[in-house]
Amino acid sequence: MNKIDKVKTFVIEKPIKLDCGKTISNFPVAYETYGKLNDKRDNAILAFHALSGDQFVAGINPITNKSGWWSYLVGPNKPVDTNKFFVICANVIGGCMGSYGPSSIDEKTNKKIGTNFPVITINDMVNVQYNLLDFFKIDKLYSVMGGSMGGMQVLQFVANFPNKTRTAIPIACTASHSAQNIALNELGRQAIMADANWKRGDYLNLENSPDKGLSVARMAAHITYLSKKGLQEKFGRKLQERDDLKFSFDADFQIESYLRHQGSAFVDRFDANSYLYITRAMDYFDLVKEYNGNLSSAFKGNKVKFFIISFTSDWLYPTSENKEIVIALNAAGADVGFIEIISDKGHDSFLLEVPEFLKSIKSFLEANY
Amino acid sequence: MNKIDKVKTFVIEKPIKLDCGKTISNFPVAYETYGKLNDKRDNAILAFHALSGDQFVAGINPITNKSGWWSYLVGPNKPVDTNKFFVICANVIGGCMGSYGPSSIDEKTNKKIGTNFPVITINDMVNVQYNLLDFFKIDKLYSVMGGSMGGMQVLQFVANFPNKTRTAIPIACTASHSAQNIALNELGRQAIMADANWKRGDYLNLENSPDKGLSVARMAAHITYLSKKGLQEKFGRKLQERDDLKFSFDADFQIESYLRHQGSAFVDRFDANSYLYITRAMDYFDLVKEYNGNLSSAFKGNKVKFFIISFTSDWLYPTSENKEIVIALNAAGADVGFIEIISDKGHDSFLLEVPEFLKSIKSFLEANY
Repeated sequence: MNKIDKVKTFVIEKPIKLDCGKTISNFPVAYETYGKLNDKRDNAILAFHALSGDQFVAGINPITNKSGWWSYLVGPNKPVDTNKFFVICANVIGGCMGSYGPSSIDEKTNKKIGTNFPVITINDMVNVQYNLLDFFKIDKLYSVMGGSMGGMQVLQFVANFPNKTRTAIPIACTASHSAQNIALNELGRQAIMADANWKRGDYLNLENSPDKGLSVARMAAHITYLSKKGLQEKFGRKLQERDDLKFSFDADFQIESYLRHQGSAFVDRFDANSYLYITRAMDYFDLVKEYNGNLSSAFKGNKVKFFIISFTSDWLYPTSENKEIVIALNAAGADVGFIEIISDKGHDSFLLEVPEFLKSIKSFLEANY
Repeated sequence: MNKIDKVKTFVIEKPIKLDCGKTISNFPVAYETYGKLNDKRDNAILAFHALSGDQFVAGINPITNKSGWWSYLVGPNKPVDTNKFFVICANVIGGCMGSYGPSSIDEKTNKKIGTNFPVITINDMVNVQYNLLDFFKIDKLYSVMGGSMGGMQVLQFVANFPNKTRTAIPIACTASHSAQNIALNELGRQAIMADANWKRGDYLNLENSPDKGLSVARMAAHITYLSKKGLQEKFGRKLQERDDLKFSFDADFQIESYLRHQGSAFVDRFDANSYLYITRAMDYFDLVKEYNGNLSSAFKGNKVKFFIISFTSDWLYPTSENKEIVIALNAAGADVGFIEIISDKGHDSFLLEVPEFLKSIKSFLEANY
C-alpha cells in the first residue's frame, strides 16, 4: 500500500481525550475537499462517511479508481454543487484510509497497532473532525450532512457544537443503535474474529489477513443494505451464466455471485480491524442515554436548521427511528423539516440515484444558503 | 457420537432417483413417533421439520436432553394431542440426526461421505419420507404439517401425493425461495466454507470441525428468525453483567452474549455439511417453476383441506408470500383456510408459545377429524 502518497492528511498535535479514558495526540487525519472555500468562509459543508466509506466523497477515488461514494450527490452542478459549496470529508479515526487507526504504525514498537488501538466512539470521531474547522479557519459551517453512521455523526456534531453549523442533514440514521443493529454488527465482528488469520488483530504484522472473515462480514452487511423487494426485483431467482441448476455449491444464482463479488471486492480496500472498531463505535452510539433518556435535551436552544431524510424500504434504520429524531427536535423547539422518500432500494438509497432524494437535498441547500 | 443407539431408523431398500439424477438405495431414515396409531389407521399426522430441526418433535430430545422443537404444540393434551393423534416425524435426508446424509459412512471407503453426498431438494426429502406411509401401513394421513422448510415440504408433499392426506397445514413458508432468502442462506454457507477447518467438507475424517464458521452461520440465521421489535423489547441495549461499556470487543450487550451462545450451542448438535445441504435444498425450492409458472396447477383437483398460517412480524417468510399460496389454492378451487397471527416474535413464532397460533391449530385439527 503506497496509499499514503495519494492521501492528504493534517496532524492533530494537541491531546484529545477519548470516551474510553485514553488520550491521543500527534495523530493524522486524512481528508479530501471539493470546490473552493469562498472569501466569506461561509460555504463549507462537512460530510461524514458511513461504516465502509472514506474521505473520497466525489470524483474518482485515487485508491480504488472508482467513483466517490456520494458521486450522485456531490460535484460540479450536482445537488451539492461544488461550484458553489466547499465540501470537506475526513476519514474517521479508527478507519483505514489514512486517518489514525488500527493499521497505523505505533512509533514505539514500529509495528502496526492492531487491537491495541483504543475502542472509539461516534463522539470521538466527531471531536476529532471538529479540528477541521480550525485547520480551514472556518468559524461556522454552512451544513453538516451524512447518511447511516454519517447521520449519527451529524447528530453528535450538532449536540456537541450547536453554534458551529447553520444547517444539518442526518439521513437514514438513528439516535440510538437498536438491538437488531448491534446483532448485525456483532455478526460481522464474529465472522472476522472466526477467521484463523485474524490472530487477535495482529495479522498486519504477519503474513495473511482475515480476508474470508471480512468478506463474510461484508456479505452480511450488504444484505441488510438492500430491501427484500429490491433484491427480488433485481435478482429474483435468476441463474448465473447457466441454463439450469448445477446441483453443487457453486454460485447457481446471480444473487450468490453478486454477494461473493461484494465480499471479495471489499477486502481489497478495507481493513478487518477497522471494521471491528467502526462497528463497535456504531453499537456504542446512544445519544438518548448520553442525554439521560431525553433526546430533546441534546438539541435544546439549538439554532441549527435540520432536515431529516428517511427511506420507505430501509429496514436497518427505518422511518420510525428517524421520526424519533424529528419528534425530539420538535420537543426541543428546533427548526426541523422531514421527508420520507419512497424507494425500493433499501438503506443503500442514500448512496444511489434516487431522484426525489437528490432533489430534496438540492432544494434544502439552495433555499437556506 | 453414540447417537445411533438413541435413534430409531428404518432402511429404504428400493432405489430412489434424486432430482440431481443420482439414485440412492439401502439408506437409513431416522424417525420418531408420538401417540398411537388407531385401529382404523386414520389418525396419523406427518410433521416435517425445519432447517435446524430433527425428528424429536415433542418430549425430551434424547441427544440434546432438551425439549422437542415443537413441544408447545405436540404432546399429550397439547394442541396436537398425542392422546388422540399419532404424530410421525423423520429427520430429512441430508440431515445429521440419523438419516442418510453427509455425515453417514460410505461403505465402500469406510469414510464419512462429506461433500460427496449428492445435492438434494425438498422434493427428494418428501419422496423419501413418503415411504413412512408404507412402513407404518398407513393408506392416508390425517394431516401433514410443518413450519418454514417444514411448510415447503407440506406443499411439495400435497403436490406429489394429493390423495395421501386429508388435511395440510403449511406454516410461515413460501412456494418459491426469494432472492433475500437465498442471499441469507448463501451467507451461512460462505461462513462455513470460510472456516479453515472445513477442508472442502472432509473435516469429519480429519481432526477439527468448522465450528466457528457454523456458529457464525447460526448467528446470522438466528437474527433473521426474530423481529426488530421483538429484539428491541427483549434485549434493547441492556448490558451483559456489567454496569457500563467496557470499551472492548467482549460481549458488552446482552444481545451479543445471546447470539454467541446460540452459535456455540448449535455446533454441539449440528453438522456443518448438513447445514450446507439443507440450505441448498431450500434455495432450490420453487414450486412455481416446477409447475411452469402457475402455482395453482400444483393443487388442481386436490381434495385436501388446507390451513395456511403466517405471522405479522415474520420478515423471512412474510404474510405476503404465504398469501400467494392461498391465492394459488383458491385459483385451483381448493378448500383453503388462512390466518395471519399477530405476534412480535418473528419467524420463530411457529416454534414458540403464541397462544392464538396454538389455538388455531387445535381448532382446525379437531374440527376436521
